[in-house]
Amino acid sequence: MTATQTAAPKPHTETGPQHGAGAAYTTLVIDRDGPVATVRLNRPDALNAMNRAFFAELPAAFRALGADTSVRAIVLVGEGRHFTAGLDLKDTSNVIGDRDGDAGRVRERFLRHVKYLQASISAVEECPVPVIAAVHGACIGGGVDLVSACDIRLATTDAFFSIKEIDIGIVADIGTFPRILRLLPDGIVKELAYTGRKFPAGEAAARGFVNHVHETRDAVVAHARDIAADIAAKTPLAIAGIKNVLNYQRDHSVRDGLDYVAVWNSAMLMGEDLMKAATATMTKTSVDFADRLPDAD
Amino acid sequence: MTATQTAAPKPHTETGPQHGAGAAYTTLVIDRDGPVATVRLNRPDALNAMNRAFFAELPAAFRALGADTSVRAIVLVGEGRHFTAGLDLKDTSNVIGDRDGDAGRVRERFLRHVKYLQASISAVEECPVPVIAAVHGACIGGGVDLVSACDIRLATTDAFFSIKEIDIGIVADIGTFPRILRLLPDGIVKELAYTGRKFPAGEAAARGFVNHVHETRDAVVAHARDIAADIAAKTPLAIAGIKNVLNYQRDHSVRDGLDYVAVWNSAMLMGEDLMKAATATMTKTSVDFADRLPDAD
Amino acid sequence: MTATQTAAPKPHTETGPQHGAGAAYTTLVIDRDGPVATVRLNRPDALNAMNRAFFAELPAAFRALGADTSVRAIVLVGEGRHFTAGLDLKDTSNVIGDRDGDAGRVRERFLRHVKYLQASISAVEECPVPVIAAVHGACIGGGVDLVSACDIRLATTDAFFSIKEIDIGIVADIGTFPRILRLLPDGIVKELAYTGRKFPAGEAAARGFVNHVHETRDAVVAHARDIAADIAAKTPLAIAGIKNVLNYQRDHSVRDGLDYVAVWNSAMLMGEDLMKAATATMTKTSVDFADRLPDAD
Amino acid sequence: MTATQTAAPKPHTETGPQHGAGAAYTTLVIDRDGPVATVRLNRPDALNAMNRAFFAELPAAFRALGADTSVRAIVLVGEGRHFTAGLDLKDTSNVIGDRDGDAGRVRERFLRHVKYLQASISAVEECPVPVIAAVHGACIGGGVDLVSACDIRLATTDAFFSIKEIDIGIVADIGTFPRILRLLPDGIVKELAYTGRKFPAGEAAARGFVNHVHETRDAVVAHARDIAADIAAKTPLAIAGIKNVLNYQRDHSVRDGLDYVAVWNSAMLMGEDLMKAATATMTKTSVDFADRLPDAD
Amino acid sequence: MTATQTAAPKPHTETGPQHGAGAAYTTLVIDRDGPVATVRLNRPDALNAMNRAFFAELPAAFRALGADTSVRAIVLVGEGRHFTAGLDLKDTSNVIGDRDGDAGRVRERFLRHVKYLQASISAVEECPVPVIAAVHGACIGGGVDLVSACDIRLATTDAFFSIKEIDIGIVADIGTFPRILRLLPDGIVKELAYTGRKFPAGEAAARGFVNHVHETRDAVVAHARDIAADIAAKTPLAIAGIKNVLNYQRDHSVRDGLDYVAVWNSAMLMGEDLMKAATATMTKTSVDFADRLPDAD
Amino acid sequence: MTATQTAAPKPHTETGPQHGAGAAYTTLVIDRDGPVATVRLNRPDALNAMNRAFFAELPAAFRALGADTSVRAIVLVGEGRHFTAGLDLKDTSNVIGDRDGDAGRVRERFLRHVKYLQASISAVEECPVPVIAAVHGACIGGGVDLVSACDIRLATTDAFFSIKEIDIGIVADIGTFPRILRLLPDGIVKELAYTGRKFPAGEAAARGFVNHVHETRDAVVAHARDIAADIAAKTPLAIAGIKNVLNYQRDHSVRDGLDYVAVWNSAMLMGEDLMKAATATMTKTSVDFADRLPDAD
Repeated sequence: MTATQTAAPKPHTETGPQHGAGAAYTTLVIDRDGPVATVRLNRPDALNAMNRAFFAELPAAFRALGADTSVRAIVLVGEGRHFTAGLDLKDTSNVIGDRDGDAGRVRERFLRHVKYLQASISAVEECPVPVIAAVHGACIGGGVDLVSACDIRLATTDAFFSIKEIDIGIVADIGTFPRILRLLPDGIVKELAYTGRKFPAGEAAARGFVNHVHETRDAVVAHARDIAADIAAKTPLAIAGIKNVLNYQRDHSVRDGLDYVAVWNSAMLMGEDLMKAATATMTKTSVDFADRLPDAD
Repeated sequence: MTATQTAAPKPHTETGPQHGAGAAYTTLVIDRDGPVATVRLNRPDALNAMNRAFFAELPAAFRALGADTSVRAIVLVGEGRHFTAGLDLKDTSNVIGDRDGDAGRVRERFLRHVKYLQASISAVEECPVPVIAAVHGACIGGGVDLVSACDIRLATTDAFFSIKEIDIGIVADIGTFPRILRLLPDGIVKELAYTGRKFPAGEAAARGFVNHVHETRDAVVAHARDIAADIAAKTPLAIAGIKNVLNYQRDHSVRDGLDYVAVWNSAMLMGEDLMKAATATMTKTSVDFADRLPDAD
Repeated sequence: MTATQTAAPKPHTETGPQHGAGAAYTTLVIDRDGPVATVRLNRPDALNAMNRAFFAELPAAFRALGADTSVRAIVLVGEGRHFTAGLDLKDTSNVIGDRDGDAGRVRERFLRHVKYLQASISAVEECPVPVIAAVHGACIGGGVDLVSACDIRLATTDAFFSIKEIDIGIVADIGTFPRILRLLPDGIVKELAYTGRKFPAGEAAARGFVNHVHETRDAVVAHARDIAADIAAKTPLAIAGIKNVLNYQRDHSVRDGLDYVAVWNSAMLMGEDLMKAATATMTKTSVDFADRLPDAD
Repeated sequence: MTATQTAAPKPHTETGPQHGAGAAYTTLVIDRDGPVATVRLNRPDALNAMNRAFFAELPAAFRALGADTSVRAIVLVGEGRHFTAGLDLKDTSNVIGDRDGDAGRVRERFLRHVKYLQASISAVEECPVPVIAAVHGACIGGGVDLVSACDIRLATTDAFFSIKEIDIGIVADIGTFPRILRLLPDGIVKELAYTGRKFPAGEAAARGFVNHVHETRDAVVAHARDIAADIAAKTPLAIAGIKNVLNYQRDHSVRDGLDYVAVWNSAMLMGEDLMKAATATMTKTSVDFADRLPDAD
Repeated sequence: MTATQTAAPKPHTETGPQHGAGAAYTTLVIDRDGPVATVRLNRPDALNAMNRAFFAELPAAFRALGADTSVRAIVLVGEGRHFTAGLDLKDTSNVIGDRDGDAGRVRERFLRHVKYLQASISAVEECPVPVIAAVHGACIGGGVDLVSACDIRLATTDAFFSIKEIDIGIVADIGTFPRILRLLPDGIVKELAYTGRKFPAGEAAARGFVNHVHETRDAVVAHARDIAADIAAKTPLAIAGIKNVLNYQRDHSVRDGLDYVAVWNSAMLMGEDLMKAATATMTKTSVDFADRLPDAD
Repeated sequence: MTATQTAAPKPHTETGPQHGAGAAYTTLVIDRDGPVATVRLNRPDALNAMNRAFFAELPAAFRALGADTSVRAIVLVGEGRHFTAGLDLKDTSNVIGDRDGDAGRVRERFLRHVKYLQASISAVEECPVPVIAAVHGACIGGGVDLVSACDIRLATTDAFFSIKEIDIGIVADIGTFPRILRLLPDGIVKELAYTGRKFPAGEAAARGFVNHVHETRDAVVAHARDIAADIAAKTPLAIAGIKNVLNYQRDHSVRDGLDYVAVWNSAMLMGEDLMKAATATMTKTSVDFADRLPDAD
């Protein structure tokens, strides 16, 4: 889950809102407030439906943010009335691609396409920096795949989630099931997946899928940014370590987890942060931790 | 978890209540309401205690229902005052079988017997169709194994669960532990298993073991049937896929899960359902999905 | 998870409060009330901070209690105002040891040190007897590792937990992450680990990390002892089996779990307990189960 | 891999060559020589090609032999010029079944069919008694799946194996790959699978896929029977244990394997065999071990 | 292991030897002979040592070849006197990168660098087309990582392999150990890794690490091309399936493998190849299978 | 597999042959030749049968050698006519312990005993330093468990191995099966385990269980010492790393292995060894690597 770091040598990095130029995204806008970046789903007229461009831009954006070591936490929000309506069905190749040709070959190509969509969503999880989703309104289908790949989810009282894939006759396949089973009990997931029913934010919070609920979108975004700012003030080395180690742990035994975290800390500790942090804790002063190092040229 | 499909070539299928004849069950009654089947534990005088006949009939019934592709969802209920009192201790061979003979050989035979009981319970999980347990009154010991193998659990306010095996001096061994750890936090399971204390429906619902609670048995059964009817209206191909994929996912890593669901959909998509479903969604009309195909002769 | 049983041939066993002598612990006090032992963190002036002596004494104590087959359940409490402040930072070698010497060799030695600390905490999990933590006040950093290795957690209303390691710049590495992911949803763990924020007992109980909450420390300890006494009245053979099997299950698939528990019961059943327990259940009388056997000389 | 033991309550058992009657197999003949059974592929005119009847009879035969506790070892041979030509392509439904109907549904039914064929082959592995394949002539396609599910393989000098599936355009799917990777290095398997080339017995023996090679079919069968007789003279409890434990180990870590075998022996040892065997070893006399116990009524 | 298919939308594809232009590689030359591509390590003056450019070009080349569906098999050879001398130590950033900066941060950056190198080597394994290494002379250090990621290895009599990393004081970390343990027994690997001794082609062939040995480089390359041509004549759909399924199987249990291959074939079979292949087999004529489909636009 | 490092704070270390005193072993003798230690099984009159004392002394010796960081490699040999006759049956509690008492409790105690014996053998594997077994004559039963836990096996031409446990009616349970399946193909292991037949050194070498064979015991021991001396001249940090990483890899997927080794090297590299080794390699001079650091006080 750390493959991110192996991304192409020098991805371009976003350090502010897009203006003109070729580098700009058509489905996203990225803001920076010091070490905190905000990624906005920005096709409000289309209810932020996930089209072809989106699946290409999402990983590009998160790889760029991950490679920019001055970014320490990311907030993910949706513009307009809803977080996202999910896959853009008008852009049908999103769902099944072209059916023409030999049945076996068409399906093999389709497999590659699904893996391409999965990889797009996984880029959020592989980003070394924590990602906090701030959800309002509807978060449907592919949107659940997307927020399940985030580290933390916050939502407005009137937000809801829906594993809607069943209503277009498919098994959700770009990331919901593997991750949501770590967030909700088996029986709850099955009801949601079989029926596609709305899972309101309040219920989701009671079940632990959502961390906090607030009345308004503004309050949710503000809370998400507070958490992001809190994270950004910690040493980015340990934050990246926690994300890496917890993602490893999720899929491994207790014993494997103990071995892995021990080796991890043997590598990453004993730099300057520990002393800085200990001093700050004892003297109750604040510290300024350096960014992680960028890739070598 | 899909071994069901390899069941003997032509198991008999139940399409209505049992009347006379050799095929009838002594511990179960099966009703059909269109695509929804209801399986009733039907020894109310014995509090639906699980005897030798039950362990033979349960898998026979679920394999038959699974093989009857006109069945799309199953509700499991108990007749009488309680859902089930668990293993029928009067039928002691249920628990340990005959102790006579060489100690090593007796234990090896006992192992086969436990695996036989486990396989009986697992038939519920292996059934390709979702199973919804509607629990009222007591659900004790083996009953917890049974409902843990269902997909969704509903209960009356006064229902309770009890991992009672500790009080007869054994470790629950026919299916509770492997499945309940995906439904409840470790520490809760341990308290319930060490003490055998009653776990009331309300607490179970708060923890996510039970999906919904209602005052009366009628209301619980009605809700279970509503969910079943809702499921039955979806494409049975995707429903079977969700059950298969979620059961796979439960025991595999995120990465394995992504790979598996991608291949799954490469196989099962691109039939007629996707287009039907998409059209229906867009036109807000209802659809009639065809049943899965029966096994070839 | 059963390595305990392989402990050195004849560890000394504690059967009452320590008085004088070399065997006494400097950081712990152990009481016995029949089959229930209480282990007290006993450096109240230092807020029960975990120092070098603690990490040596903790496994010694739990191995001794595990080897004393008259012990059937253990309650873990903290003396003074708080459960524990976590790692004793004054005893800095606890955290990183000596940095002098070749960088590679220092880190390899550090790895051994972390594994030593991990093994100390794991002794609680490896103890064949259930351990119930009764937490009041603060339970910080290493304290979360410690209580996560217990079977059941109870807490006072004003207690709180904090994965505080991030504030000294490290990834919690002596046991929190592998175990807490089985106790809390992924997204909740991440928020707690990234921010180090206080996780109050009430919230922890709602999420299932804590089983029960009471107003006062006395009430919490009393409830912990009631559960312990309840456990102590059951057959210790089945109790040890449940702990072993659940710890196995936590890291294995459903199918593996079914196989393992079947073989386990083939070994451990068919002794005297089953008949005793069955008789008692039917006659509604109480039973006196014998202790497990001590290791052979 | 021990699911065998859960087979239907009372499968019929074969205790001699088939004569007339409904119980007789059309593709197999079973002989008994005391505790050693010989299963013969018996369609020499069709080169023992695996047709529909074969896939039904194979598991029936091995379940029956496994349930007959007087059987202690099984030799598998082919009648006629070759061991087997593999799947009977004339019986095309073996390979893909009927293609008519909705594309998604046809493929879901096909999946069930493949699992049915897999389960047929797996019955050999699940049989609690060791199975020794004695191969002569060609062993092609499905034949490799079949012998890979045996415990031990012997072959004539002129025998050869071929993962021929590639030449009918499919990925071998009824049992070769999962098992052969435990018998041959990765790179050898890939060459055989990509090219379908003949893998002669001599090369197979050098690589460890085949245990022993002899000039003639008679010599191979004689050696297989010697090994079978040797196995039959050991305690059947330990033999069944070895097969169970090694099949478990194949798919688990060293640590899991140590845990599992320890619990296994805790169950199965301490009967009469150990003392009998020890006495015999010390006095250099022979012993007569009792059969395993049959399932209870 | 199939991530290849998710590669960036439109990687450039190589369809012949490089001439001039920006697309040309500095460390590789790629030839095409119909469906068979040959990748040459082409820095003979530097003994094909693996420098920075190599680690960028290798994955670019294999992703391009994998995306060009007219490529059906790949042969990997080295130009000059040796296959490769391994990591280019003159290009020291290959090994450890820059050491300047905070110790923790330098190590975290180093981790990213190792993962980048690993991903470079893994591109060979992720290529959907089989890769056959034809080795002559020395294959040292990183060269063993490289050929271990190939599907099949052939070598000249005088070729040798050496896990030389120990002699520069490191643990081989870019791909040797995970893959070579599937190719050689544990004890052999340990001797080679602890001592770095030469492992001659003859011994490697006897152990199964190398499939075939020939006297001359020409004979080895010719044999590699024959195998490649043989593979290229099969249906590319099944060949890609075999590679995918065997790579999955390598890391999964028997049961998982059976499930996965069954779903795989449910997807990929029932196209035109099966009928073509069956007809060809029966009529003993040759077939012309179509290429896999390229990614959709 | 690295639990060694967690051994009790200050185990005594052996630095030469035992003379008098309480520390001396009754079943082992330990010699030192610079960084190479030789452990001798030293009960030749009893054919080095493994008795109670042996199982206590073996782990004590290997933990001491592992803690003495001046030890860099270990050779394991047997005194007298044979390497070892396996478990000492006269010391019957080795095998099953006392049978008196409640059947369930006796078996639970037996389980602890088997785990104690397993832990004794595992101490060889957990020792951070490579262990080379030099086997002559018979290596029977428990002896196979013992040498399977070593890193490398050498043997005399007339040596043989025998998984003799079947002849005393038990499943080998203290370490053979988990480890030997990584050293030999499945089918070979099964024949050896079912029949207990002698597995001569020559055959074992052809199969890769034994690395090298020589005519005489002297030649075998000399070769073992040469390998040990070779290992002892390398950097002990990388040697310990290779052992740790390969033992991890054995039980993990390719992807897990890549992740683990990357983190491992991030920790352990960038000390003085790399520069020393690189310089030595380039200047073709020899190097003197420092020992690993001992545990802190």
